[in-house]
Amino acid sequence: MRVLDLVGLNQQQVATLADEGIEVVTKATETIDAVYGWGPQAASLLDQGPSFHFVQSFSAGVDYFPLAALKAANVELANTSGIHAVPIAESVLGYLLAFGRGVIDDKMIFTLENKQAIVYGTGNIGRQIATYLRALGVTVVGVNTHGEAVAPFDRTVAMVDADPAQADFIINVLPLTPQTHHHFDARFFKHLSKQPIFVNVGRGQSVDQSALVSALKQNQISGAALDVFEQEPLPQNDPLRQLKHVILTPHISALGRNLKEEAFKVLEANLIALKNNTPRTHLVDLNAGY
Amino acid sequence: MRVLDLVGLNQQQVATLADEGIEVVTKATETIDAVYGWGPQAASLLDQGPSFHFVQSFSAGVDYFPLAALKAANVELANTSGIHAVPIAESVLGYLLAFGRGVIDDKMIFTLENKQAIVYGTGNIGRQIATYLRALGVTVVGVNTHGEAVAPFDRTVAMVDADPAQADFIINVLPLTPQTHHHFDARFFKHLSKQPIFVNVGRGQSVDQSALVSALKQNQISGAALDVFEQEPLPQNDPLRQLKHVILTPHISALGRNLKEEAFKVLEANLIALKNNTPRTHLVDLNAGY
Repeated sequence: MRVLDLVGLNQQQVATLADEGIEVVTKATETIDAVYGWGPQAASLLDQGPSFHFVQSFSAGVDYFPLAALKAANVELANTSGIHAVPIAESVLGYLLAFGRGVIDDKMIFTLENKQAIVYGTGNIGRQIATYLRALGVTVVGVNTHGEAVAPFDRTVAMVDADPAQADFIINVLPLTPQTHHHFDARFFKHLSKQPIFVNVGRGQSVDQSALVSALKQNQISGAALDVFEQEPLPQNDPLRQLKHVILTPHISALGRNLKEEAFKVLEANLIALKNNTPRTHLVDLNAGY
Repeated sequence: MRVLDLVGLNQQQVATLADEGIEVVTKATETIDAVYGWGPQAASLLDQGPSFHFVQSFSAGVDYFPLAALKAANVELANTSGIHAVPIAESVLGYLLAFGRGVIDDKMIFTLENKQAIVYGTGNIGRQIATYLRALGVTVVGVNTHGEAVAPFDRTVAMVDADPAQADFIINVLPLTPQTHHHFDARFFKHLSKQPIFVNVGRGQSVDQSALVSALKQNQISGAALDVFEQEPLPQNDPLRQLKHVILTPHISALGRNLKEEAFKVLEANLIALKNNTPRTHLVDLNAGY
C-alpha cells in the first residue's frame, strides 16, 4: 500500500509505516492508495478520477477540502478531531483569565467563578473547554445543531434556541459550513445584554468581522480574543489592531503539543485499517462538512 | 459589646451586627472590645494597654501587624485566610496561560498539560492553586515548613528539602516572616535548570527583586508574573518595567470577589464567638506570624 505524504512525515514515522507494509511517497508519480494532507497535487489527482479512496487531514476543520468532489469520487475523508482539544481549551481559559485577572488591563477585573459561558460547538474541543471552565466554577451551556445532550456541558441547546443574552463569555468552536458562515453578525451582537467577552478559536469566516469591530466600539461586548480571522494573516492595518480589550493571536491556539506526533497516531491507525479493510476512525460526514 | 471599625463596614453590616448586640464605632473614644482592621489609632490604643483582646484583620497576610506587642498584651489576632484563595488561584493560572498561549508573546508557546509546578506555601491559597493546576494536568509539589502532607498536592516537601530545579513553574504564596524574607535570591535562581516561569502572589519582600531582574536577564527564568513588590507601587523607573516576558499587576491578584462581604462573614462569626466566649476561627499564631 502506498500513501502520498503532503504533510511531511519524519524518518522515524516513515520507517514505522514501512514496518506495517505501507510505503510513503512525496510525489504522485505512482498509483497511490491514500493521501495525508491536501494540496494542488492531490486536487489534480482527484480531478482525474483518483486511484485513492482515503484522505487523512492533518487538521480538525476540513472546510478547505473539496467535499462535494470527494463524495462524488467515493473518497473517505478523516480529520484529526481531538488532538487540538487540550491546547485550544487552555488558550480559551488563558484569554478569559488574561482579561479577568488584570493582564490586559488592570482596571478590568473579574473572576471566572460563578460566571456563565455559552460554547458554540460541542465536539472534542468544545467539551474540553467545558471541562476546564467547569473546573473553575463556570456554568457552561453548549450549542449544537439539534440540541442533543453532551457531557460535560451543564445544558445543551439547539442552534435555533441558543440565547447568548445572559452569557458572560461567548466562545465559538463551530466548524465552518454554509450554515455557520457569518453566524456571529450585527444582529447577533445587538441582542447581547451583559457585555460579554467574545472568543473565536473556530474559523474566521463564522464571524462578520466588521460587525465584531462595531460591537466592540459600541460596548455590546467588553472584549474579544481572536485566533482566527476572515483574512489570515490579519492585515497590519486592520481596525481590530487599534482597539482596546482585544487579544489577537495568529492561528496558534492549537499549538504546544506535539501535533505531528498526535496526528501521526490517527494516520497510522487509519492506514492499517485501510490495509486490513476494517473501519476507519475520525471520518468526516461529507454532507455536513465536519 | 463594641467594635472599632477601621475597614469601613457598610450600613447593612452595621445593622446586622446591631441585631447581634454588637455596636460599631469608628473612633476609639469609648472602651472597645475588638478592632476590625488596623491603623495608627489602634496602634496607639495598644501602646496604652488596650481594653480590647481581639483584632480581626481584613487581609490574609498579617506581616504589617505588631505581632510581638499583640502577644505581650494578650490580644488575639484573626486573619481572613481563605477568602482570597479563588481569585488568587485564578490569577496564577491566568499568568501561566498568558505566557503559554501566546497572549504575551506569540513566539513563546507551551501547554500546561504534563508540566511540573512547585508552590511555596500550602495554606488556603496554595491549595486552591494546586486544585486548578491539577485540573489542567499539572503535577504540583507543595512546600511548607516541615513537609507535612497536604491535599490536593501531589507531594509536599519541607522548605529545607525543596528542589525547584526540575520545576516548569515556581509559585510563591508564602507568608512574609523573618524566615521567608528574601528566600528567592540569587542563590535560589542560580540552581534552576528548566528556565521556569516565576510567579509571586505572596509578599514582595520574599523576593530579592534585583536578583530576580538578573535571573530574567540571564535567562535563569524565562518569565515572571509579579503582583507584589519590595516597594509598592512599583516605581515607574524600575528595571522590571523594561524587561520582556514580565507580567506586572499592582497588588490586585485577590480582587474580583466581593471581599468586603466575604471578610464580614469571618468578622461576624468571630465577634459572636467573642461575645459568647466560644472559640474564634482564623486565629494567627503570633509567634509564627501566620
